[in-house]
Amino acid sequence: MTKEELFLTIKKKKSFLCIGLDTDITKLPAKLLETEDPVFEFNKNIIDLSHDLCVAYKLNTAFYESQGAKGWLSLENTINYINKTAPGVFTIADAKRGDIGNTSKMYAKAFLETLNFDAITVAPYMGEDSISPFLEYKNKWVILLALTSNKGAFDFQTSKVSMNEKQSGPPIERFLYQQVIETSKKWSSPENMMYVVGATKAEMLLDIRKIIPDNFLLVPGVGAQGGSLHDVVKYGINKQCGLLVNSSRGIIYASTENNYAARAREEAQKLQKEMEILLNQYLL
Amino acid sequence: MTKEELFLTIKKKKSFLCIGLDTDITKLPAKLLETEDPVFEFNKNIIDLSHDLCVAYKLNTAFYESQGAKGWLSLENTINYINKTAPGVFTIADAKRGDIGNTSKMYAKAFLETLNFDAITVAPYMGEDSISPFLEYKNKWVILLALTSNKGAFDFQTSKVSMNEKQSGPPIERFLYQQVIETSKKWSSPENMMYVVGATKAEMLLDIRKIIPDNFLLVPGVGAQGGSLHDVVKYGINKQCGLLVNSSRGIIYASTENNYAARAREEAQKLQKEMEILLNQYLL
Repeated sequence: MTKEELFLTIKKKKSFLCIGLDTDITKLPAKLLETEDPVFEFNKNIIDLSHDLCVAYKLNTAFYESQGAKGWLSLENTINYINKTAPGVFTIADAKRGDIGNTSKMYAKAFLETLNFDAITVAPYMGEDSISPFLEYKNKWVILLALTSNKGAFDFQTSKVSMNEKQSGPPIERFLYQQVIETSKKWSSPENMMYVVGATKAEMLLDIRKIIPDNFLLVPGVGAQGGSLHDVVKYGINKQCGLLVNSSRGIIYASTENNYAARAREEAQKLQKEMEILLNQYLL
Repeated sequence: MTKEELFLTIKKKKSFLCIGLDTDITKLPAKLLETEDPVFEFNKNIIDLSHDLCVAYKLNTAFYESQGAKGWLSLENTINYINKTAPGVFTIADAKRGDIGNTSKMYAKAFLETLNFDAITVAPYMGEDSISPFLEYKNKWVILLALTSNKGAFDFQTSKVSMNEKQSGPPIERFLYQQVIETSKKWSSPENMMYVVGATKAEMLLDIRKIIPDNFLLVPGVGAQGGSLHDVVKYGINKQCGLLVNSSRGIIYASTENNYAARAREEAQKLQKEMEILLNQYLL
């Protein structure tokens, strides 16, 4: 999917909602456990009742891998179902991979080719050759970790780093997450790179937008983790919206009873309505 | 496996070799492709002919995931086979995971419980709560990325970072990889944390040993990537050896013909013999 196509979908649906399918088999209604692939059944019902309200689904690979090969089948079934029944929806493998070049090439094949996701989240620690193999796929996306939504974000991401970028003059000092953005934007374009920036640190979006005015940002941490949607939009929106705001637990576990899909729809609709108001106020 | 048990195995086998099963289905001898699980068949034959020479196997998840759910089955078959037929060998999921706490908990379950690996490689970018769920498993290990063997290691890992560690006094300046080691050693002990340090940067091991004299290091990059085994030992060995040196391609693809397992054994034996000499010279 191109950036322009994503923006058109956002305008059409009046939504920049990404629904996180972090599906934990221990939290499913009992009746689903009798089906052949309970995790897929759960996802299917959520997708059926929410794909008109969101522009993206994010599948967190950890929840699938915790079930071994069976879980990987649930992942395959889910992405295939989205690609078949909701082909205009942007799909993200929240895999946080990244390895030496020949290995990242294998991860790129796994997620962007075999499973046919539109995008994959990647960790920046191993540098350019760990990321570039993902960028070789046309109309596919890397979503690079910049400033995450967890407490541990303050362990290294907000350390001050100094880099000598010019032959003369003093080194430039920045936070590590800013340096990650500065350096990685030279490897990529706003047409194939997004960044993860946690909603729990919304005011930092102002400075981030000075470095990357045009890139889309994937924003976790609204809802269960406490971030404010209004602040994210206020500080982070750009002229093509430039935001995908993710909610996982707040939507898919709104109810753990048999009405889970209907309750998920209600929660997704609440967020979509808020987003519609904010889009009208800040963009359209 | 405990640190003491690992050291005893090293002394007994006179080897600190880790064999990387980065098994690429496109590089297998044609006759294997007729079997039900060619990647597992390949691994099985390599394991049968090498487990007396090595102390660890490292399975790089990317190569398995590139084949989808089928690949994940090959991964399961392989780790189960090692745990059954070579129970004293240390097993590493080279997965380079790391996510917010509730997600890392799922990855820990996937690799340390469901698949029953002894260790998993983890990326440090997301900080403490992304790593601590892995440390909760008794006698299991985190192997944290510090200084990797690829070109991209110089993009961020060798940036200078400054941290205010005391109430007064100037901030302390270190390389990011040193800071990762300094900070993370407070979360863990040499009994449950190892570090990845590339053989291509062997002289940096001297400074790393000043920070972590007692931790094991997993050292990739000997062989195909050009690192020197002698330098790794010279600069990195400690009183319990403290080194696992990995070779992947140099061993498993020594031949792409039907004699691949025998040729892999020959290459593994060469390395084991070198290691025996170095152990006699520097340790025993």
